[in-house]
Amino acid sequence: MPFDYLPPLLRTSSSKIVLLVMDGLGGLPIEVGGPTELEAARTPNMDRLASEGVLGQVTPIRPGITPGSGPAHLALFGYDPLEYEIGRGVLESVGVGLQVGRGDVAARGNFCTLDEQGNISDRRAGRIATEEAIPLVERLKKITIPGVSTEIRHVKEYRFAVVMRGENLNPDIDDTDPQQVGVPPLAATARSSAADHTADLFNQWIAQARQVLADNPKANGITLRGFATDPNLPTFQDSYGLNAAAISVYPMYKGVASLVGMQVIDFSGETPEDEFSALAEAWDGYDFFFIHIKKTDSKGEDGDFDGKAKVIEGVDMALPHLLDLNPEVLIITGDHSTPASLRTHSWHPVPFLLWAPASARPDDQSSFGERACGHGGLGNFPSMETIPLALAHAGRLEKFGA
Amino acid sequence: MPFDYLPPLLRTSSSKIVLLVMDGLGGLPIEVGGPTELEAARTPNMDRLASEGVLGQVTPIRPGITPGSGPAHLALFGYDPLEYEIGRGVLESVGVGLQVGRGDVAARGNFCTLDEQGNISDRRAGRIATEEAIPLVERLKKITIPGVSTEIRHVKEYRFAVVMRGENLNPDIDDTDPQQVGVPPLAATARSSAADHTADLFNQWIAQARQVLADNPKANGITLRGFATDPNLPTFQDSYGLNAAAISVYPMYKGVASLVGMQVIDFSGETPEDEFSALAEAWDGYDFFFIHIKKTDSKGEDGDFDGKAKVIEGVDMALPHLLDLNPEVLIITGDHSTPASLRTHSWHPVPFLLWAPASARPDDQSSFGERACGHGGLGNFPSMETIPLALAHAGRLEKFGA
Repeated sequence: MPFDYLPPLLRTSSSKIVLLVMDGLGGLPIEVGGPTELEAARTPNMDRLASEGVLGQVTPIRPGITPGSGPAHLALFGYDPLEYEIGRGVLESVGVGLQVGRGDVAARGNFCTLDEQGNISDRRAGRIATEEAIPLVERLKKITIPGVSTEIRHVKEYRFAVVMRGENLNPDIDDTDPQQVGVPPLAATARSSAADHTADLFNQWIAQARQVLADNPKANGITLRGFATDPNLPTFQDSYGLNAAAISVYPMYKGVASLVGMQVIDFSGETPEDEFSALAEAWDGYDFFFIHIKKTDSKGEDGDFDGKAKVIEGVDMALPHLLDLNPEVLIITGDHSTPASLRTHSWHPVPFLLWAPASARPDDQSSFGERACGHGGLGNFPSMETIPLALAHAGRLEKFGA
Repeated sequence: MPFDYLPPLLRTSSSKIVLLVMDGLGGLPIEVGGPTELEAARTPNMDRLASEGVLGQVTPIRPGITPGSGPAHLALFGYDPLEYEIGRGVLESVGVGLQVGRGDVAARGNFCTLDEQGNISDRRAGRIATEEAIPLVERLKKITIPGVSTEIRHVKEYRFAVVMRGENLNPDIDDTDPQQVGVPPLAATARSSAADHTADLFNQWIAQARQVLADNPKANGITLRGFATDPNLPTFQDSYGLNAAAISVYPMYKGVASLVGMQVIDFSGETPEDEFSALAEAWDGYDFFFIHIKKTDSKGEDGDFDGKAKVIEGVDMALPHLLDLNPEVLIITGDHSTPASLRTHSWHPVPFLLWAPASARPDDQSSFGERACGHGGLGNFPSMETIPLALAHAGRLEKFGA
């Protein structure tokens, strides 16, 4: 349980909480004295929420630590990533709807191009298009290994996920991707003897995959990475009494949400408006909504300062659709910072806005940005405290002690 | 020991520390952009102290957690309430001067009204007046149970405290108050077999109480709640080297202070002036003074914004009496927030003012209020760090390491 003092305090309520995560929201100025991406963006709606609500800054993992997407989201959900580890193979699998049960072993797969010597000439099979990859995944599905079952699903372009199920499986296996070209894929190798049997099964599977892909000019080989099993996380329901839903375009974030027991909402489209429409449709069925906006991070990683600001402006413009639903608590933040100037995730604290008309204590800030958040009434605090704060402001916690 | 690194660093000193706690001090605005209770109050003395000293905000238990009075005070005194639990029966008993030793079992008692069928018709016996209740408590004192002794003391109106002393007593017993009318009081029921004998003794006591109260029209029954024993807390002397005194009008706060080894000062009157006079009289005998102001919380719970502000103004007006004593360190804060708009304790952080003319590092704030405290030089921090900060500013801590 992320906070073992919370369950005895939980109170039933009809209040609704929305956690709107703009991936990689935190930024940096690109000139001395200049604004960050968030400060540069025109965000009249968020600025109003900042006036009425309260700001702060959150540290995702620990000070100075740059988080990956999985741990950053776990932290926002209240699960200390130093305590709860989730393998990348599991994230990828659950993100495309593959179940990973206790004892199952999941891995991420890449199609790659092998030359005549069996050496890798392209680690991503020329970034093969999704339409070309899907029939190849269908061929992989036909592989059978005695004693176990395998389930394969396409992810995107050259990427797929594989889950193996059977007795006595163990995920303690090194990646088969050598991370370079001109050498052959590595064999699946157990890091401990308990995983020898599982590594052997995966090597059988890889050998058969080579056979069924042999006649394909680009994607004639595969590599597997991130072998992992179900982390068996306590659920949002058990931890917080919340019936939670997740709205995300990208599989990875659906995956991490489903690992904590959130219901992943199906919808079509990929704009903020589409996500908020999905929110409106799901509104009556849940207490808590996690909404994930990916493109802030993508633009940050592209080094596109203006593009990132534009994505933020797009979210701001769509925000009235969300506000029309009258949530009791709305939190707008990011999972981590992705400053365009750095073109990558960073360790900087993340702007945090909490709006709760009935219960937030306003500070004297009136815009949503890094500098304003540095003066916010919530101060600087760990991301992991987000959900307890949300529960409190939503009237979902009883008093501790008399 | 709350901070096991402190005792080796303690230095003797003649410096005096005053911790002035305005119960439920933190508040909320009642209109958009408006002041909180503390911000609305005219507090020229506290504002001057804010200019000369340093501000901050404290979180009592954990972020988002609304504290009860007992845990909130324990936290201010440096004892993590998640680690040190004190039963309500013990708090009530020590608050009226009943000793609760190791192995004793204390409970809170309520007089109640029973109808002819023995069902509760009023859980508080019509809020019977103190004058009426005292003779009934005298009757209860005459009850004898073989093998144990009991001590009873009146608290206020329909409330009393009872402590049972004897061999092999165990407090793991459920409340006998059914928390509703139209049903009889519950029997004292052990939650574990180790408490069966104690529950049986309390049931004998309750049966006799029914007999001695039978002819009273209103208070003809009793309920018992909060069975608990001495938590055996480390003392202020052992933990901090402080000879500490407590000045409070209300029993509960005397109680929690005495559990950490503070000497409770007897005095008459109940205004801030009366409390500060008691402080002046006790001044030479102690190093540390905890002064508790109750009415900020009471007015907050009444939903009386202006009344709460007036109580704060009254404390401010009386403050020169305290300042005349020239404490080396004065801290003014609350145990938790009780915003009038919420009419109850809340989880919001609490304004904190530290004044220490010889050693505080001033920030640039010049008034005492929630927004100013949000910009204070001490930042946001746990209540539990209050005493170490006080000791440091009082010159009572040696350097750690060479």
